[in-house]
Amino acid sequence: MARPRSPEKKEWIRKAAIRVISEEGFHRCTTDKIAEEAGVSVGTIYNYFSDKTDILSYIFRVEHKKLNIYFQRVSSKDLSVPEKIKILIEKYYKYVFNNKRLARIIHDESNKTSEDLTQEIFNYILDIRKNLKALLQEGIEEGTIYSEPDLDMMVNMLLGSVNAIAFLGYLKPEKVDYICSTAADNLYVMLSRGIFLT
Amino acid sequence: MARPRSPEKKEWIRKAAIRVISEEGFHRCTTDKIAEEAGVSVGTIYNYFSDKTDILSYIFRVEHKKLNIYFQRVSSKDLSVPEKIKILIEKYYKYVFNNKRLARIIHDESNKTSEDLTQEIFNYILDIRKNLKALLQEGIEEGTIYSEPDLDMMVNMLLGSVNAIAFLGYLKPEKVDYICSTAADNLYVMLSRGIFLT
Repeated sequence: MARPRSPEKKEWIRKAAIRVISEEGFHRCTTDKIAEEAGVSVGTIYNYFSDKTDILSYIFRVEHKKLNIYFQRVSSKDLSVPEKIKILIEKYYKYVFNNKRLARIIHDESNKTSEDLTQEIFNYILDIRKNLKALLQEGIEEGTIYSEPDLDMMVNMLLGSVNAIAFLGYLKPEKVDYICSTAADNLYVMLSRGIFLT
Repeated sequence: MARPRSPEKKEWIRKAAIRVISEEGFHRCTTDKIAEEAGVSVGTIYNYFSDKTDILSYIFRVEHKKLNIYFQRVSSKDLSVPEKIKILIEKYYKYVFNNKRLARIIHDESNKTSEDLTQEIFNYILDIRKNLKALLQEGIEEGTIYSEPDLDMMVNMLLGSVNAIAFLGYLKPEKVDYICSTAADNLYVMLSRGIFLT
């Protein structure tokens, strides 16, 4: 008789996987190592997941869900779109640097082009873009976002700028405080007036 | 007696490695596979490189050299810094989409945080930032770039925006023509006035 599955155990495995993947990198990580880290048998892992890719997909599904909630919460505030974006950026940096291991996995696994992205990772990437696009569209309608160039370019500028700064924080941990305290304000200024004085 | 090494053969191995790494991903790639692709023996590979990481480092060293030449060439033009940046971006997209396999390797291997970056990759990342920073500094002096917020933030905005758009092109090949024909102009507009209408 199969043993009943417990949400707590699944969560325990997810957290152990985050530790192992962030230490070893995804391709060197094995379900054996995750089982050892979680203090369960490999058989237990297979009660919840079919393989290590399935665990990675689950890590993305959990973040994806959080991301949507977080977007909805900020979007429903009575603020202009630029102000909402500033809050999103602030909260984002707090989240990634408080959850550095997880954030690095998300960064690394969603920034690959040469290897197959799983459907979950692809959905995650597309949904961030979709959410941002909807927010910018709202800004165009309320008159706080330029209607040109097209929304895709704006989404890329926004996402790219935010991620490049987070990446700097991963590479140089001594920059994290500086990023958390100044990056959202600085991005707001640059997104408001650009950087070229022409 | 060791056989004399030939630059042509080294180049042949580099190109074969680019094909194999872009197909298989770096961690699944082996010197055996590179030798097979290059049509040489594995022993020949070891005449030139100590292991596959050494080949990857060499791929980065070659690009690094090109990058510096390319920066110097554009920097020495009699143009304003924003115009130089626009040309750099235009040429960059042409280069990456004409050398897609290579560009994807550079993207993937220089965007990892969880795994050890080799010294060559790290130097490559730092040098792009150093070159851009020097260019922006020149712009501040000539009065075409805002002096605030700090240069690091501006470098991140610039690099991040450009890379996010290139990434879109890797994921969605149908976007490549659109990117090559419009992205540099669109980035120029966004970097000149921002995207917030405040």
